[in-house]
Amino acid sequence: GKPSAPNAPWPQPQMLNASSDYVYIDPNFFIIYSNLKNCDIIDQALERYKPIFFPPKISLQSPSSFDDSRVLISVLIHIRSRTCAVYPELRDDQSYNITIEDSYGKIIAENVWGALNGLETFSQLLFITKDNYLATNASISIHDWPRFPYRGVLLDTARHFLPVPILKQHLDTMAYNKFNVFHWHITDDQSWPFVSKTFPQLSAKGAYSPDHVYTPADVQDIITHARLRGIRTIPEFDTPGHVAALGRAFPEFLTDCYNGTVPRQAIYGVHAAREILDPTNPEVYEFMKALLQEVKYTFKYEPYIHLGMDEVYPACWLSNPYIRKFLEENNMFNSTDLMTYYSSKILEINRSIGAKSMVWQDVWDDGVKLPPGTVIEIWKDTTLVPESQPWSYYLSKATSEGYDAVLASPFYLNMIEYGKYNTNDSVMNLEFFKWYNIDLFANFTGDQAARERLVGGEAALWAEFVDGTNTLSRLWPRASAVAERLWSSIDVTNPEDAQFRLDVHRCRMLRRGIPAAPILNGYCGAYEVGMKQSMVNEPVFSHLT
Amino acid sequence: GKPSAPNAPWPQPQMLNASSDYVYIDPNFFIIYSNLKNCDIIDQALERYKPIFFPPKISLQSPSSFDDSRVLISVLIHIRSRTCAVYPELRDDQSYNITIEDSYGKIIAENVWGALNGLETFSQLLFITKDNYLATNASISIHDWPRFPYRGVLLDTARHFLPVPILKQHLDTMAYNKFNVFHWHITDDQSWPFVSKTFPQLSAKGAYSPDHVYTPADVQDIITHARLRGIRTIPEFDTPGHVAALGRAFPEFLTDCYNGTVPRQAIYGVHAAREILDPTNPEVYEFMKALLQEVKYTFKYEPYIHLGMDEVYPACWLSNPYIRKFLEENNMFNSTDLMTYYSSKILEINRSIGAKSMVWQDVWDDGVKLPPGTVIEIWKDTTLVPESQPWSYYLSKATSEGYDAVLASPFYLNMIEYGKYNTNDSVMNLEFFKWYNIDLFANFTGDQAARERLVGGEAALWAEFVDGTNTLSRLWPRASAVAERLWSSIDVTNPEDAQFRLDVHRCRMLRRGIPAAPILNGYCGAYEVGMKQSMVNEPVFSHLT
Repeated sequence: GKPSAPNAPWPQPQMLNASSDYVYIDPNFFIIYSNLKNCDIIDQALERYKPIFFPPKISLQSPSSFDDSRVLISVLIHIRSRTCAVYPELRDDQSYNITIEDSYGKIIAENVWGALNGLETFSQLLFITKDNYLATNASISIHDWPRFPYRGVLLDTARHFLPVPILKQHLDTMAYNKFNVFHWHITDDQSWPFVSKTFPQLSAKGAYSPDHVYTPADVQDIITHARLRGIRTIPEFDTPGHVAALGRAFPEFLTDCYNGTVPRQAIYGVHAAREILDPTNPEVYEFMKALLQEVKYTFKYEPYIHLGMDEVYPACWLSNPYIRKFLEENNMFNSTDLMTYYSSKILEINRSIGAKSMVWQDVWDDGVKLPPGTVIEIWKDTTLVPESQPWSYYLSKATSEGYDAVLASPFYLNMIEYGKYNTNDSVMNLEFFKWYNIDLFANFTGDQAARERLVGGEAALWAEFVDGTNTLSRLWPRASAVAERLWSSIDVTNPEDAQFRLDVHRCRMLRRGIPAAPILNGYCGAYEVGMKQSMVNEPVFSHLT
Repeated sequence: GKPSAPNAPWPQPQMLNASSDYVYIDPNFFIIYSNLKNCDIIDQALERYKPIFFPPKISLQSPSSFDDSRVLISVLIHIRSRTCAVYPELRDDQSYNITIEDSYGKIIAENVWGALNGLETFSQLLFITKDNYLATNASISIHDWPRFPYRGVLLDTARHFLPVPILKQHLDTMAYNKFNVFHWHITDDQSWPFVSKTFPQLSAKGAYSPDHVYTPADVQDIITHARLRGIRTIPEFDTPGHVAALGRAFPEFLTDCYNGTVPRQAIYGVHAAREILDPTNPEVYEFMKALLQEVKYTFKYEPYIHLGMDEVYPACWLSNPYIRKFLEENNMFNSTDLMTYYSSKILEINRSIGAKSMVWQDVWDDGVKLPPGTVIEIWKDTTLVPESQPWSYYLSKATSEGYDAVLASPFYLNMIEYGKYNTNDSVMNLEFFKWYNIDLFANFTGDQAARERLVGGEAALWAEFVDGTNTLSRLWPRASAVAERLWSSIDVTNPEDAQFRLDVHRCRMLRRGIPAAPILNGYCGAYEVGMKQSMVNEPVFSHLT
């Protein structure tokens, strides 16, 4: 592999030309400004990038002794639409151009989201020389746009709670990697941290503790933190499975699973005692309508609610005599009929309240007809679920049937492996290679229209074994490999070069207070965690209040 | 598995009887004192345990309203030998007894090291009730001793540098788990952070940067921090392989590896260009003598120096025409003869300067006769090195030949795996089971004397992919599983119960400022990382100056 420049951007821009000459930046005489005034997205971004341009604890030198022509004086952010925006959408133009010539730079974008992408790339072009001068190359010309419009990360705040400051650092890091969708798997069997105004008993009884909750203010705080960084927040309220915690508040909504004639019995490996909604209970639908209305109101800018609908255990439903009776009385023949009954009602409720639906593939696997515009998230694969098909099969099928699809299967980053090295000139992190070499269109059989419905991918960190102690260091920079795969050209596939660029990017994240883990032997600088200049826990980056 | 009491100790004591009655502790009226005065080991331990007994950020209640008989007033640490000590030794008595009856407790030990073990267990017996009272059971009777005298953890500070505050937190955590040997793999191919007074060029040229070094003061700081916690520090200066960083200061000491007739050529998978000492250069031995003398002087209390002697690539030596000539002239026939030549000289140097030798098994595999008293560390196994034997074979053989042996093979904790769950009533962390179920005497064929020479085991965290960002959360509580295996009775083997005790112990570490990762679904308390009461980065626990 080829060692990287200290300011190589990540993910790799689509088109980049840079001369090897440098210009320097005077921390006291540098101006970055926009043609769009009084727009919170831009105004707050410019504030936010100050400590990123000029890292705390590093005393930058002034290049005053240099010739003026070698100093970058100003950067203009030019937003062609001249309009602010509130919340990013899937099909927004996310592209931008950067030019730096001599003393002047320009970031040009159609809208504020492209401008944010440009600003992030510009921040990465800056580097600190050994003598502590802030520098970049000049001239530079970049023309950049994402390969896929949907680039997500799933965090699971139910198996372990993630405090708001950690979620915010995570969102910051998503922006540093040009991810643009935060899929918030907020509830599950283990806990229900979401404080509902309509049903306060959900978190009162379903959260781990009164401290392990997201209040309405917390949720708005997260949504705002994300949208200011060009990130959508898609909440997932997974039903009818994965609801044991919901059942602590509403025990009557759960199905009693039987072992033979004995109710509320777990059969390990088949089903738990009580973990699935009872679709025969009409109150369940009233509850779900009220809950989803609150969710829609809470996540008001986001068109989609993720409804889960994965991993429903038919053996539980069918073990229950009341459910068997219901099937008989309603001319249903199996659990798939019952799942169709439940999910059709919920999908219709979601439609009726003005929300679009996103679902895990299971409900579609079951043959349920989904409303137009439903996004199907593909997570199955032969490696995860032996009896399933390869993910490429599902992607081709779903998009060919007219659904938008998002690929998660190969990006389950909770499935850690030791990344052994295999060459002598560098430690090659094979784990990183694994995701980096995924081509989402491998074995794709759909037509051009279907290709466009494959909207992107999502890295998932299921939280069986992570919480505030290790979420950031486990996810980053591993998720960065997925970020480049989803953003950059399909031609950017040389992991032996990429590992060095990713190593530079990892040091960059560390400089921004994110404890991103190492992927190669080596070191970053005197700002590593545990050293005096460490930026981790630096107030400006830590969001602790 | 059976859920654990909130004050279940880890590792499990050999004999423990506790009633289910509680006594309470008044934070303002509790005395713990020793019969041994003016002993730094004890005096500093008592200081150190104050914030452990009474955690910062938790306002404990005073049990003043209770009946006096339900308050624990004082604990006496009774050290039978009535003598202080400076540094722990392998065969020290490490046992202790604890009794708590009504208002009085006693920790009885033969020496200060047993007393430290008792103090640690006592600290674990305390728990905080939901109403914020500090409590423990009474009566309690514990009689405890370790199954193996050597319970080590290896950290590698060469592939990535670990700042002193991180090393100190690691040593604290070792003490919380009754580990008693810190194996400091201080140098390797990647860097040489050890500042030598004799050869300052070693770190000047071999360290990653002038900030990535351990000064003589740092080293003494670490040694003292460890010994005050009953932990030996065994430094490893690995030769003749793993010395590329040494070669940056002394290029003339390295063997040029050839590819055919071309010198300084790497053949990937066979050898690097230059990474092994040249044993034909007489200056190498003068250098090694001076270096080892300095090491012996620096680590002055510790009898052993670990000399490494692992993974020497014969193909490199034999590729070099000057080495082949040397073999011919000295009636040597192969690389093993040369390894014998080198290692015999080094082992003799080490003996001559008054140090005992510890080595990786490779040199012994090569048939080199080792001086009496040499400790052989077993790291090979069929799972790591396909052409090798199972580790039990090596343990039996080495101890039967009269050597002390330490087992590392199954405890390479850098080799992470995803610990999938497999039952419905709890997430079972299979990765943790893997180490927990290791019986060091499985398939052991030696006699009783040989059994006693199997002195213990060592968890190793090779540092390809860890540094200050993730060392503590990756190692803990995974290494705790090894700790219990090395300390507790062979009868303590039920991992389904142990996981709940370990979960309690993990929360305990978190309460002491160590970002130990979760191993089960669930939560600890309002002191998790990212929450306001988090103890991580609390000055008293973080050792940042």
